[in-house]
Amino acid sequence: MLVRVSAYLGGMESASSYFILAIDYIGTFVFALSGAAAAQNKKLDLFGGGVIALVTSLGGGTLRDILIGNTPVGWLKHPWYLPIIAAGMLTAFFFRQATTRWHRTIFLFDTIGIGLFTILGYELARQQGLSWPICMVLGTISAVFGGVLRDVLSAEIPLIFRQEIYATACLAGAGTYTLLLQTAIPRDAAMLICVAATFFIRLAAIKWHWVMPRI
Amino acid sequence: MLVRVSAYLGGMESASSYFILAIDYIGTFVFALSGAAAAQNKKLDLFGGGVIALVTSLGGGTLRDILIGNTPVGWLKHPWYLPIIAAGMLTAFFFRQATTRWHRTIFLFDTIGIGLFTILGYELARQQGLSWPICMVLGTISAVFGGVLRDVLSAEIPLIFRQEIYATACLAGAGTYTLLLQTAIPRDAAMLICVAATFFIRLAAIKWHWVMPRI
Amino acid sequence: MLVRVSAYLGGMESASSYFILAIDYIGTFVFALSGAAAAQNKKLDLFGGGVIALVTSLGGGTLRDILIGNTPVGWLKHPWYLPIIAAGMLTAFFFRQATTRWHRTIFLFDTIGIGLFTILGYELARQQGLSWPICMVLGTISAVFGGVLRDVLSAEIPLIFRQEIYATACLAGAGTYTLLLQTAIPRDAAMLICVAATFFIRLAAIKWHWVMPRI
Repeated sequence: MLVRVSAYLGGMESASSYFILAIDYIGTFVFALSGAAAAQNKKLDLFGGGVIALVTSLGGGTLRDILIGNTPVGWLKHPWYLPIIAAGMLTAFFFRQATTRWHRTIFLFDTIGIGLFTILGYELARQQGLSWPICMVLGTISAVFGGVLRDVLSAEIPLIFRQEIYATACLAGAGTYTLLLQTAIPRDAAMLICVAATFFIRLAAIKWHWVMPRI
Repeated sequence: MLVRVSAYLGGMESASSYFILAIDYIGTFVFALSGAAAAQNKKLDLFGGGVIALVTSLGGGTLRDILIGNTPVGWLKHPWYLPIIAAGMLTAFFFRQATTRWHRTIFLFDTIGIGLFTILGYELARQQGLSWPICMVLGTISAVFGGVLRDVLSAEIPLIFRQEIYATACLAGAGTYTLLLQTAIPRDAAMLICVAATFFIRLAAIKWHWVMPRI
Repeated sequence: MLVRVSAYLGGMESASSYFILAIDYIGTFVFALSGAAAAQNKKLDLFGGGVIALVTSLGGGTLRDILIGNTPVGWLKHPWYLPIIAAGMLTAFFFRQATTRWHRTIFLFDTIGIGLFTILGYELARQQGLSWPICMVLGTISAVFGGVLRDVLSAEIPLIFRQEIYATACLAGAGTYTLLLQTAIPRDAAMLICVAATFFIRLAAIKWHWVMPRI
């Protein structure tokens, strides 16, 4: 599996890394679901909900690809993103009760998702020869920008600016990865540790009510 | 004329397709006018109104070009967009009464405009070898994103998320075009049918109060 | 020094034009500081303040680079922007009293900054062979779009749409430069005059309460 992770990141077109692809698609599904759920509180129509679901799942990777100049951006080239997002959206609409009950499960996938999107963004930037602080920023943008867009389109101050350790967990995961790359630890293991670090930092932040200092 | 449509879409630089170019420029003018009219209700100054007019007319094509990687984006290369937008803006400012009276005419041009922008976006995407669902999405983005930006800059929940069949008419037109491309119908005729479908779906939606289901 | 200005603009990678680079970095610092100061009034956390500082300083150049297709965008390639922005942000947080007292100094740097960013954007566009009205628009976008993004992320109608001659001063500076390029005046001198024109137009607008006409 670790070999497959490298293969996927070394050539993003390759379909051989089933594990990462599965997580990527699950992340896309979950982000679409959370976007559509957010739209339900805004009294948007079905189309509006679809757009919110779309930008929540694709926004981060899109901005990353545009900034790097990696165009056409990823989701234009891969056929599966749109059907997966449609599935996430429909799930949110038709299983509203279940969605609420699965809240914890969705939260866990979401947290795995941001960790993975962070590392994907980081590696894509690194392959362009960009410096590590830039890689950290691009990784974090990949993970969180979709949520920012969702809030801007809903005319709200983006939630991540005001609550809980979210983007900061991504930055911490990316920082961990940066440090690990200086050691003898293999890149594949470093990636998994980065995802785990992002995951547990966010969980710990919620459990023990860590917050960033107010200005 | 039908030949000219193909010529224009096959080589966007060509000035030979006078018909489509005229509609494109009229669409740009009308979108600028509607953007400036929206700004009048916001007590913006002349500069602010100009920016709103600009993003309303150019926003959709700009995002389409950026996502595809077709840069410098179109309006940077063609000299006529800026003067046309300035004319649309000034018309809105100095003929405010008339603008109100011409409401129906503007609405008709606007509806022709979104149909045409949908097909332009679709074809530009198709020439990049992108799949048909992506072409449909990019066509719709070309048609409606300018209005979304206008609303975001005015700190409002974008209108198209809450009212009437608008973007959905573009999607329906693009879907019609996708189906027609599978038949023996010539591409030129398919384009005209797509524009007409978008046009009449929107008109019918308004006449019979079609709405998308609320979430 | 004038030679260095050309050298810098002719080859943006060159580090030899210490004067312009210094002003560029000071401008970045000051924009980060003003963004972070704006965030303090919004009760954002430290991360949110950092993002606002980042988009305020980098937003204009980023949009300019994306529209032109100059990717990876500038700040991904130059190592000094992020540390400078971090410094500007920390200055705003820890020296809040001083920041308030230095209000006039910051204002002056900010006004020099928009003049210089206007000319940088103008020249980058001109080197792509774009027409002068487009160069004027791209120069102005470089100077003011960061502030627009800052306001949109704060869910406010962008301030520049409602108050004082700001973007208009950039446009006037860019227009002056366009005219001077038609004369025998050397390009270097024309640049300095453009920066000075932007500077004094904005100062005069504030001193004598010039406003754009309301719509």
